[in-house]
Amino acid sequence: MKKPYSGIIWNPIELFSHQELTSEMIPELLVHQLNRAKIGSPFYRKKLVDLKIPDKRTILDLYATLPFTDKSELLADQQQFPPFGSNLPVRESKIQRINRTSGTTSEPLLLILTSKDVMNTYECGARCFYASGLRRHHTVIHCMNYCMWAGGYTDHGSLEHLGAAVIPFGVGNSRLLIETILRIRPQALHATPSYLTKLQEVLNQDFGLAPIELGLQLGLFGGEAGIQDSNFRRQIEKIWGFKAMNANYGSAEVLSMFGAECHERAGLHFMGQGVLYPTLIDMTSAKDIPITSGAVGELVLTNLVKQAQPLIRYRTHDLIEILSTDRCLCGRGSFRFKVIGRNDDMIIIKGINVFPTGIQKIINENLDYLNGQYVILINKIDPIDRFVVRAEVRPEMSEPRDFRSKLQSAFVAHLAVRPEIELIAEGTLPRTENKTKRLQRIL
Amino acid sequence: MKKPYSGIIWNPIELFSHQELTSEMIPELLVHQLNRAKIGSPFYRKKLVDLKIPDKRTILDLYATLPFTDKSELLADQQQFPPFGSNLPVRESKIQRINRTSGTTSEPLLLILTSKDVMNTYECGARCFYASGLRRHHTVIHCMNYCMWAGGYTDHGSLEHLGAAVIPFGVGNSRLLIETILRIRPQALHATPSYLTKLQEVLNQDFGLAPIELGLQLGLFGGEAGIQDSNFRRQIEKIWGFKAMNANYGSAEVLSMFGAECHERAGLHFMGQGVLYPTLIDMTSAKDIPITSGAVGELVLTNLVKQAQPLIRYRTHDLIEILSTDRCLCGRGSFRFKVIGRNDDMIIIKGINVFPTGIQKIINENLDYLNGQYVILINKIDPIDRFVVRAEVRPEMSEPRDFRSKLQSAFVAHLAVRPEIELIAEGTLPRTENKTKRLQRIL
Repeated sequence: MKKPYSGIIWNPIELFSHQELTSEMIPELLVHQLNRAKIGSPFYRKKLVDLKIPDKRTILDLYATLPFTDKSELLADQQQFPPFGSNLPVRESKIQRINRTSGTTSEPLLLILTSKDVMNTYECGARCFYASGLRRHHTVIHCMNYCMWAGGYTDHGSLEHLGAAVIPFGVGNSRLLIETILRIRPQALHATPSYLTKLQEVLNQDFGLAPIELGLQLGLFGGEAGIQDSNFRRQIEKIWGFKAMNANYGSAEVLSMFGAECHERAGLHFMGQGVLYPTLIDMTSAKDIPITSGAVGELVLTNLVKQAQPLIRYRTHDLIEILSTDRCLCGRGSFRFKVIGRNDDMIIIKGINVFPTGIQKIINENLDYLNGQYVILINKIDPIDRFVVRAEVRPEMSEPRDFRSKLQSAFVAHLAVRPEIELIAEGTLPRTENKTKRLQRIL
Repeated sequence: MKKPYSGIIWNPIELFSHQELTSEMIPELLVHQLNRAKIGSPFYRKKLVDLKIPDKRTILDLYATLPFTDKSELLADQQQFPPFGSNLPVRESKIQRINRTSGTTSEPLLLILTSKDVMNTYECGARCFYASGLRRHHTVIHCMNYCMWAGGYTDHGSLEHLGAAVIPFGVGNSRLLIETILRIRPQALHATPSYLTKLQEVLNQDFGLAPIELGLQLGLFGGEAGIQDSNFRRQIEKIWGFKAMNANYGSAEVLSMFGAECHERAGLHFMGQGVLYPTLIDMTSAKDIPITSGAVGELVLTNLVKQAQPLIRYRTHDLIEILSTDRCLCGRGSFRFKVIGRNDDMIIIKGINVFPTGIQKIINENLDYLNGQYVILINKIDPIDRFVVRAEVRPEMSEPRDFRSKLQSAFVAHLAVRPEIELIAEGTLPRTENKTKRLQRIL
């Protein structure tokens, strides 16, 4: 069984800076991967038909000129060449696992891993969970959906790879979940942040217990934005009594997990060292921009060693801000970042770019009166001229004076748009154990 | 990645006979395991307090005098020493996975595995699936419950250990299951036999398809009796167009899987070589009886190398019949057996011992008119004087002449008891994706 590098770091590769990896390790892996893809993958043979792959001295300059890969191409390819598409540079008999994306915005994409791909996924997953404080002596209850999603079976594997004791739970049956926590008393929980609200209701109604009585010490979260917001985090840490960590940022298509925060909580560390080549592109021009402190752009990823479905210059559509490229106090050399939002989630309201995470931040600054459950309603089709924030209020509280107009002013001040505010009773909005869909085009 | 020993056998240890393993390998492992348990497990230190563990020359004689371990003791022990009980000869930090039993007849028992235990479980599971025809180039959709049961996460691990491509599915959402099968076209399905009825209904109603149109080639079954019945098997093979294999016999407490049939279909091969010591005891006297062709008795198992929760002389309460101890035509040396029933499921009707599997056999001999779905209703408490067989009939058929009295006569002839027969419409009995509870004490 693998031992961690230190009490703080899982793998010594985490010590290297992005700069060091880019100059020393990435060029050679990139040349190999491009060659492999061009030879073995009909999908990339077509995309890279005119490409002469140079040696490792000039590969990085060439890289910025390569065509992007987008999810829509992968979907079209799987429809044309069912079931797995034409990006499979390995024999089908090497396939070890078949997952799928959630398919909320499109047909689900089938995701293929070989056993080597599985091991690399576990390795990066273990780095993330370890950074967020999970240790070998912990017991963790794993509450992600096991039915085909990478978060279920695959993240369970990462938790085990780290050496923790894992209770496979999945989603649904919150009563049994609470009974199991009360019986086994795990130290850690791995879930989506939005599941906490549902769990708190069941705890309260069926057990007459407060969340803190479960005795959890560590909440590992992923799959959704939310936990990076310090107001939301402060609130759930108070209610649950655990340390709430942003432990699981990733992209199902590229690598299940490659971002997590360490105990310094100074943003997500990039954890895909040796496995992924991350670059940034400008949101408007789609030109490459350097990864430097303060840079904002869309994250573009290339798999460096993936055998099945290797992706090259894959547009994640996640907009990130580089918080720092300096070595962190924890010792890790990787850059730290935060996720601003998805550029395909971005909405334009009367000419203003608005991200759902910006709206969430304002909701979370008003958790004295609001309970944190909300939806955003906008027009079915562009242009958007109606923008409604519908939020649940705490039942025990009476409405603070001028609450609605103060909330509207906060929106104007931070996002330059003025929503209609609808305040509704606690428990009105549907709860989910999976990812919550906050933005609804129904007006 | 591990390679199979031959095109037919996964591990060369399967070539040895029970006799060879018992004289050469088992004594030494048994001495080690007894020592380990007596030193490391407070549970066994108490049970074996007066035992002087001899050397390997005399250990087998002593073995027959050791006290049994029963599930009720394990449950009481976990209640007294929560959560895991006192049978944990390893530090808690070595725990890798926490499963539980289904708890239909009692509180669920928590089942603990270290990473070494997990590997031994996968190894025996791969032997079983390989014997039943699964190969590295196959894709298998795995339809067992991932929520805490060993059949979910653990059997998935065995399927991957063999090298097959696995689609993690679990239970529930039969529509999505069918869509997934139609899209990915896996060759194999792993499920409980009773799930097929439910799946067939959804296929028919929601897709207008017959089971054979899914194109499955291999049905791997476990978790329930049924598939060993040749009438039932013939029926489902005709409807589904696959080879239906009894691929997964085991005991969650001892080892998830250790019995499966090979292509000769001459009973379940014992597959726990090197990991389990199997013995038989007489059903009435509870004295050890030798494993010879034709012997019938309760299977008693001892873990030979298990680190967490090793069980010694554990009464499975499964009654088995040894079909043969001769080398099978497939080359395996292990004894072959069939499961007659559980002696704690045995019911005494007017002085006659009746097993649910005996009842099932008679139902399955009448599948021209019955559809195979049935329940047995008996008195709430002993003595049993009412015995009702309630069975669904095929909608398209009219009742054959004298059907009820012929069915009753079959019960009298084979089981020496005469049930009341209730024939009900197809679809009346509840369907389940988990184990079906056929015997109901409700009268």
